[in-house]
Amino acid sequence: MGKSTFIDAFGSNLTKLGNRVAVLAVDPSSGRSGGSILGDKTRMERLAVDEQAFIRPSPSAGVLGGVGRATRETMLLCEAAGYDVILVETVGAGQSEYMVADMVDVFLVLMLPGAGDELQGIKKGILEIADILAVNKADQDAGKARRAARDYASALHIMTAGDAAWKPPVLTVSGLQNQGLDALWETMEKHRHVMVEAGLFDQRRQDQRVKWMWAMVEDRLLTRFRNHEEVRRLLLGLESDVRNDRKTATQAAEDLLSAFGMGDLG
Amino acid sequence: MGKSTFIDAFGSNLTKLGNRVAVLAVDPSSGRSGGSILGDKTRMERLAVDEQAFIRPSPSAGVLGGVGRATRETMLLCEAAGYDVILVETVGAGQSEYMVADMVDVFLVLMLPGAGDELQGIKKGILEIADILAVNKADQDAGKARRAARDYASALHIMTAGDAAWKPPVLTVSGLQNQGLDALWETMEKHRHVMVEAGLFDQRRQDQRVKWMWAMVEDRLLTRFRNHEEVRRLLLGLESDVRNDRKTATQAAEDLLSAFGMGDLG
Repeated sequence: MGKSTFIDAFGSNLTKLGNRVAVLAVDPSSGRSGGSILGDKTRMERLAVDEQAFIRPSPSAGVLGGVGRATRETMLLCEAAGYDVILVETVGAGQSEYMVADMVDVFLVLMLPGAGDELQGIKKGILEIADILAVNKADQDAGKARRAARDYASALHIMTAGDAAWKPPVLTVSGLQNQGLDALWETMEKHRHVMVEAGLFDQRRQDQRVKWMWAMVEDRLLTRFRNHEEVRRLLLGLESDVRNDRKTATQAAEDLLSAFGMGDLG
Repeated sequence: MGKSTFIDAFGSNLTKLGNRVAVLAVDPSSGRSGGSILGDKTRMERLAVDEQAFIRPSPSAGVLGGVGRATRETMLLCEAAGYDVILVETVGAGQSEYMVADMVDVFLVLMLPGAGDELQGIKKGILEIADILAVNKADQDAGKARRAARDYASALHIMTAGDAAWKPPVLTVSGLQNQGLDALWETMEKHRHVMVEAGLFDQRRQDQRVKWMWAMVEDRLLTRFRNHEEVRRLLLGLESDVRNDRKTATQAAEDLLSAFGMGDLG
């Protein structure tokens, strides 16, 4: 994917423009794999020694909610500490993208070039949360990258409302060759401008804060539920019963809620 | 959209083939609007008087969870009562599609023809849960319908894994003229055959049951939380504080959880 190379080049361009840049990583798997995959300083050679940059690997909190919370709080701290640009990096798996999309002002999806079958099977839902899409490694085969960009653009076109204030553009870039990264930053600045003008910039942040509050409430309620001793004791058998149709989903839910002290499914 | 006309023709074809057909509607708005929009028998002239068919309008339970639960239980009853085909109709808004997609063996998305800008802004995420897509009203402008089908097909192509057992096809149909409905039913039967062969048919039903159990548990926990007297008293002020950045989302979540008796956000 070349993500570290991309961030190294993109972030270095930004510090040269006079910005203080923070790079935060969200990778719920990093705890399990024992080592951090994202935010690897050794793979960001220039940013790692750049005094205007701060790189924080993913917290190894294990659960997505914990990693997300730690990241969101670090973001707020970085903002308060005067960082101008905060790049939040995430893995292309699980639910981490949705969480990150709910934290940031602009969500960039970095893709690899490819065509036909190679294009297929991109992560479901990812095109829908993209504000900007960039096809990386355009240096290797410019024609292939342009064809991929065109195909993504037509898919995005179908999924974007005709009257949307912002229509996600598709760019081609090369992190390795530092190609198209200035244009990408200009596009991000344009996105911000368009969102501010449409009154959507603040609204998005406000909505994100409320959504985050509810996400934490739900996370806590479900964690309490799942960790409840009697619920845990029943769960394995009930899930198996429901899976194999020995018990209805409704009855099993009622059993679990009763065990938790919230019975009588209305 | 011509959905009632489509269901009337499609369902009548199925009863003529010897099937007993049930039509259930899921429309969480039907309670609020005072009358049922979906499952309107007067708009399904043939099925309404067909002894092999049963039409049930949307329950006006108001909340999606309640409507969904009632529908799911009616589905199980219809299955037990010997209905061969159960059509579950939903509105093109809100979250009802996702709920219905988690209840059925095959999810058909019915679209209108159109091109360019008209294609844009289809409901986000809907292409991703589609097993089959059909462009309706193909009788009015066959060329337009074919172009729309081709555009949808290319978008679906990008979103489908190359090794997927089933790749969602796009058909053109006309409910009014009863065109393409036999081919649609054949495609649905083919889908079932492919899923069974791949071992995915039962797996999907098993996963749906477990998912449904958890959906009911979550629904109940959040309803309890939202209806809790002290939570309700605090909520309006806290949401406003979080929205306007007078209080952090974390602090507000903690306040609400404390009020609910589950404080000490870990």
